Amino acid sequence: MHKFEEKTIKTKPLYKGKVISLQVDDVLLPDGKEAKREIIKHPGAVCVIALTEDKKIILVEQYRKALERPLVEVPAGKLEAGEVPELSAKRELEEETGYRPGRMTHVQSFYTSPGFADEIVHVFLAEDLVKVDDGLTVDDDEFVELMEVTIEEAEQLLKEERIYDAKTMWALQYVRLNDLV
Amino acid sequence: MHKFEEKTIKTKPLYKGKVISLQVDDVLLPDGKEAKREIIKHPGAVCVIALTEDKKIILVEQYRKALERPLVEVPAGKLEAGEVPELSAKRELEEETGYRPGRMTHVQSFYTSPGFADEIVHVFLAEDLVKVDDGLTVDDDEFVELMEVTIEEAEQLLKEERIYDAKTMWALQYVRLNDLV
Repeated sequence: MHKFEEKTIKTKPLYKGKVISLQVDDVLLPDGKEAKREIIKHPGAVCVIALTEDKKIILVEQYRKALERPLVEVPAGKLEAGEVPELSAKRELEEETGYRPGRMTHVQSFYTSPGFADEIVHVFLAEDLVKVDDGLTVDDDEFVELMEVTIEEAEQLLKEERIYDAKTMWALQYVRLNDLV
Repeated sequence: MHKFEEKTIKTKPLYKGKVISLQVDDVLLPDGKEAKREIIKHPGAVCVIALTEDKKIILVEQYRKALERPLVEVPAGKLEAGEVPELSAKRELEEETGYRPGRMTHVQSFYTSPGFADEIVHVFLAEDLVKVDDGLTVDDDEFVELMEVTIEEAEQLLKEERIYDAKTMWALQYVRLNDLV
């Protein structure tokens, strides 16, 4: 047991939605006092650093309702129930971009918002891409636009704040640090 | 207006908590169909890449109830209502670590979970640190442990998955890419 562990006294489920659920836990703190923790449960997600043969990075632009603005991001998607992350990453990449990877490597996983959510993102590197269709075979309620950019162009999108999310910024740093393009 | 914009038909507030709130929006999609979007509102947060004179990175370990485990992270905290991010970053750093920065530079901001939350994290670089007290003057319900590590030690913590969140991983890559230590 970790010395700072917070024991659950009571869990109150407040909402169960299509993607997320919300609960409030009463916890026992290390000093014996009590506190409340608001917690979002999320199924987890995958994202893909997909590099074309001519060293371009594949990105997708989509509208993000939570932010009331579009964002340019690495291809990503939620894990389906029971789905292995690597297969999920292959599926999302092919659905959103039409590319099927010859090689798919898990490079990192991270929690996105540990203060209030259990969402984890598994990052994959996709190489030796083969174009199998036009892509954009996405869910009914998804509208995405495909982009293929150089690392310099991606960094320009970041400066313009069109790229503005943690996973995509981490991915661009990863490409730079490992001289992938 | 962005071509993929999702117009709000109705917003249903479902929960208003101490830190987060939850709403479900009915939206009009670009193709005229309707969909539901589950959205978490968050006040935003700051985190600090704090480097000591001997080139160590200041980290804090704390228990994260949403994950039911402790994490080692860069010092961070939520924005108080109306607080300027830079002042919030200075306050959090001093409260958690006892260090006051001579120089504080905003280096990046990013959304953490654009699929369902509006949380934004503002990242600052703190240099010329002066130790003003022992630190750990944190909120009533916070228990944190201070660490000062080399970049190599931080990367080892990452391999051991004790560091496991996006903002801290982004921060470590930032330190590497900019040769800060």
